[in-house]
Amino acid sequence: VSADEPGADWFHEEYKGVSRLGLKLRRHLHSERSDFQNIDVYETEFFGRVLTLDGLIMFTERDEFVYHEMLVHVPLLSQPAPREVLIIGGGDCGCAREVLKHPSVERVVQCDIDERVTRVCEEYFEWTARVARDPRCELLFADGIEYVGEHENRFDLVIVDSTDPIGPAVGLFHRDFYAKVRRALRPGGVVSAQSESPHWDPPLVGRIRAELSSVFPKTSAYLGHIPTYPSGTWSWSYASVDRAHDDEFDEERAAKLEATTAYYNRELQTASFALPNFVREALEGKNRFARFGPQ
Amino acid sequence: VSADEPGADWFHEEYKGVSRLGLKLRRHLHSERSDFQNIDVYETEFFGRVLTLDGLIMFTERDEFVYHEMLVHVPLLSQPAPREVLIIGGGDCGCAREVLKHPSVERVVQCDIDERVTRVCEEYFEWTARVARDPRCELLFADGIEYVGEHENRFDLVIVDSTDPIGPAVGLFHRDFYAKVRRALRPGGVVSAQSESPHWDPPLVGRIRAELSSVFPKTSAYLGHIPTYPSGTWSWSYASVDRAHDDEFDEERAAKLEATTAYYNRELQTASFALPNFVREALEGKNRFARFGPQ
Repeated sequence: VSADEPGADWFHEEYKGVSRLGLKLRRHLHSERSDFQNIDVYETEFFGRVLTLDGLIMFTERDEFVYHEMLVHVPLLSQPAPREVLIIGGGDCGCAREVLKHPSVERVVQCDIDERVTRVCEEYFEWTARVARDPRCELLFADGIEYVGEHENRFDLVIVDSTDPIGPAVGLFHRDFYAKVRRALRPGGVVSAQSESPHWDPPLVGRIRAELSSVFPKTSAYLGHIPTYPSGTWSWSYASVDRAHDDEFDEERAAKLEATTAYYNRELQTASFALPNFVREALEGKNRFARFGPQ
Repeated sequence: VSADEPGADWFHEEYKGVSRLGLKLRRHLHSERSDFQNIDVYETEFFGRVLTLDGLIMFTERDEFVYHEMLVHVPLLSQPAPREVLIIGGGDCGCAREVLKHPSVERVVQCDIDERVTRVCEEYFEWTARVARDPRCELLFADGIEYVGEHENRFDLVIVDSTDPIGPAVGLFHRDFYAKVRRALRPGGVVSAQSESPHWDPPLVGRIRAELSSVFPKTSAYLGHIPTYPSGTWSWSYASVDRAHDDEFDEERAAKLEATTAYYNRELQTASFALPNFVREALEGKNRFARFGPQ
C-alpha cells in the first residue's frame, strides 16, 4: 500500500495480501496524518487526482461518479419528494454534490468525523467540495453515530458513506447504529449504505445484510461497476421500514436527473437490483468462493 | 507484465502503462511459447489457477464463470431451441462447457487457432477442458475467420471468444469477419462477442459497435462484473439479423439452467442490457473520459 517502494512510481492498494491494484503516478500532491487517519492525494496518469485514506482509494476523478450517483440517486428516486438528507461520512462532499441535484431537497447535513478530509478536498477536489457553499448544505465534523442518535423522525434519507468496516467506521456496520438510523428516519424514510464487494468478500456482504435486515423489514441490495474499489464490483444496501426501491418511482423526475449523470439512469433504478447468483448467495450468508485463499 | 520482477512473487498485468492488477503467486506452473503466443499457468493465493496468453489474464478459477456464462447463456436463451453452435477462439473450453448445459444443442464446434492452449488447459484446468470428450463437442485447431467463411446457413449461434484486438485476434473485430459470420448463421441466428471494457477504453467499445452494426441490423450490448479483466467492467455484444435478446425468452428453460450457474439468472437476461450513461455514450462513439491519460 505504498508509493514509496523501490523504483515505484506506482501507487498500490493491496487487498489482504492476495490482490493489488496499481495506479501509475505523476505526483504525490499531499500527505498528512489527521487525528483519525492518513490522508493522501496523488496525481495519476489515468485516474486524475486520487484521494486515499489509510492507503485505501476513496475517490478518483475518473470513476467516483459511479459510487456517488448510485449511493444517492437510487434511494432519492424511490421517494416522491425527499426534503432532508443526512450523510454519515462523505467528507469528500461527493454525496452532497449529488443530493443537491434534487430540487425537493431543502437541507443536507454531512456529518464526517474528520474535518481534515473535507479541507483537503476543498484544496484538491474543489469542483466537488464547493457544494459545501450551497446554503442548503450543512457541514458537521462529529461522530455520526452520536449525531444520528440525537434525532428522531427527522430525515427522509440517511446515506452511510463509510470507509471499510475497520478502524473509525466499524460501528457504522452494526445493528445498534442501524436502530438509531431507523429512529432518525421519517415514515417512508430510507437508508442507503455502501456495502463492500461480493466478489472479494461474500461473508462481509452477508454480515452487513444480516445486521441491516434485523432492523429494517425491507432490505435489498444493488450493484455497480467501480474499477478502483476492490474487485471492481461494488454493492450498496437499500433499507426501509415501509418502502421498496421501486414503490413510487417517478419516471419524469428521473429523466430530468439523467441529463446530469454519467452512470445513473432510469433503467438502473430496477436493473441494478438484479443480482448474479453468487451475490444472492452472499446475501444469504453463503460463500461460493470459500475454497479460495483468505476471507 | 511479469512475475520475474525483483522481489516479485506477484503477477502483474499492466494496462497501457497506467494501471495494473496484481495477483499474489504461489507457483509458476507452466510456461511455453507456442506458434502463436506465450502461454503461462500460475497458481495463486486467491484466484486459484490462472491462464495467461502473452501476459494477459484469460481465465482464473475464481471468476471465469462470469465471462463464460454471460457470453454463452444470454444468446442461447434468446433462441427457442438452438442446435448448432460455433465458438471462435475459446481454446480453454470454458464456453463449450456452458454451451453443453443446453439440452437442445446437438453439436458445438470450437475453432481455436492455437492447439497448445487447449492441451495446456487439459493438463491444468481439466475440470473444464474435459468437456472436449463430450461426443457433441468437436475441436478444430484452425483459423476461425477462414472456417466461418466456409459455412453458410449453418449455425444458430456463433460465439466470438477472442483475445484483445491486438495480435492474432485483430481480424475478429472487423466487419469483413462479421459479414462472414452473418452468412454462416441460420435465420434467427445470433452472434455474441466479448467486447472489451467501456470503463477503460470507450473508443474501442464504440468501434466494435460500429463494425458490428454495419453488418447486423439488431445489435446491442450487455455488461458484467469480471474482477480480473481490465477495470472489472466487461461488455459483450449481441447481434442478429432478425432477433433481439428478449424476443423469445423461455422463463422455464432459464429457471432450469439457473440451478447450474454461478452468475447468470433470468433477471440478468434483461437487466444486463441496462447500461450506465457512459456506456451508452461509448457505444455511440463518445468518450466521457477523453481528458484522462492515453486511450
